[in-house]
Amino acid sequence: MQGELELALSTVLRCDVDLTVAGRTDAGVHATGQVAHADLDPALLAVHRPKLLRRLRGVLPADIAVTAVREVPAVFDARFGALARHYVYRLTDADAGPPPLRRADTVGWPRRLQVPDMRVAAALLLGRHDFAAFCRRREGATTIRTLLDLDVDRDADVIEIRASADAFCHSMVRSLVGALVTVGEGRRPAGWPASLLTLTARANDVPVAPAGGLTLVRVDYPPDDQLAARASVTRARRA
Amino acid sequence: MQGELELALSTVLRCDVDLTVAGRTDAGVHATGQVAHADLDPALLAVHRPKLLRRLRGVLPADIAVTAVREVPAVFDARFGALARHYVYRLTDADAGPPPLRRADTVGWPRRLQVPDMRVAAALLLGRHDFAAFCRRREGATTIRTLLDLDVDRDADVIEIRASADAFCHSMVRSLVGALVTVGEGRRPAGWPASLLTLTARANDVPVAPAGGLTLVRVDYPPDDQLAARASVTRARRA
Repeated sequence: MQGELELALSTVLRCDVDLTVAGRTDAGVHATGQVAHADLDPALLAVHRPKLLRRLRGVLPADIAVTAVREVPAVFDARFGALARHYVYRLTDADAGPPPLRRADTVGWPRRLQVPDMRVAAALLLGRHDFAAFCRRREGATTIRTLLDLDVDRDADVIEIRASADAFCHSMVRSLVGALVTVGEGRRPAGWPASLLTLTARANDVPVAPAGGLTLVRVDYPPDDQLAARASVTRARRA
Repeated sequence: MQGELELALSTVLRCDVDLTVAGRTDAGVHATGQVAHADLDPALLAVHRPKLLRRLRGVLPADIAVTAVREVPAVFDARFGALARHYVYRLTDADAGPPPLRRADTVGWPRRLQVPDMRVAAALLLGRHDFAAFCRRREGATTIRTLLDLDVDRDADVIEIRASADAFCHSMVRSLVGALVTVGEGRRPAGWPASLLTLTARANDVPVAPAGGLTLVRVDYPPDDQLAARASVTRARRA
């Protein structure tokens, strides 16, 4: 996604563009609320601004859309300035499989899921913890995160899992979903996912849910006058 | 769609299956609420019933899903027994184009549309009329239809047009949408579509909106004890 977007912007603006993206997504993961920033010459942007969205649409593939372009303070950092990321995971345990018009972002699950058990398991994971058990390890990166929201809802045959955190480690949302689904199938008790929070390395019995069900839906930022402070705190914490 | 479904049913049930479909859809038109019937041996159905949906899912392509199978009175006729068909047409006039996750059923429109004008034009079309101007002519078929609902709503950049009628002629919904969009662009006054109701043949200046935006969302039937009466009335009227 980042590559296609940088290429499209470079083509339209006729200059090199380096994007910094709020939530880097694995192959197959969707985003409806992705945010990215680039440092551009304001004069150049002013010239292209009126037709920018339409021109980008003309050069981007149909699976990427730029919905808004905004000028931001120079200290704005799409990645380090973010306060929270919000994801939704969609899956269905219907015999009929995913609804055809939503099969792009809805995963079919072959067994019935008990949502009330999943909800109990989710609530026990909230708060600031070392989520190492749910993370694909990367050298030197912290796995301590604050899980702000993790909830499970069923609407007929479609189950939506919402996950919000200050930031997520690599494959963390899909691992949380994998753990909840294991509970929902009745293969583990509701307390099992939270019991893994004592581990300091990836738990191999936590399945990683398929990428196609996951969508980054929103990224939150502080007010403009707090952007600089937020970015420097985050940078220091992750260094 | 009908061919794939008949093949899937024949494969699973190991007998020939002829389907009668409520709303035949052109290539590219979607359906989330399609209804079809077939005459099957009740004993054969009873044997396959428990695993039927899962087996159909196994043999159907991913863009077709059977969500429910029901036994109905012998007089049930999916086509002639229907009281009303409900369609939704989705389009967006956003500079960004269709939202990628809904591009399967949302058409991008290159010009801004005035929804209030479209709504006035729509209201003037309601009722029982000869919709010949909006129909692709087929020999001997009536073009007199009762338009029960035609409404236009905007939710941010996505415009939804809902159309309900006792039945629709070939390409009728897409022609109604094409006429409303012509009004929404300001190229014709709000009274123009209704003025075409006096014509007895297809109006060539009514564009047919692209198939991809159209979805058959629901088909209504009378209570079981009125099924036979309804089907015979409809058959007589269309003969």
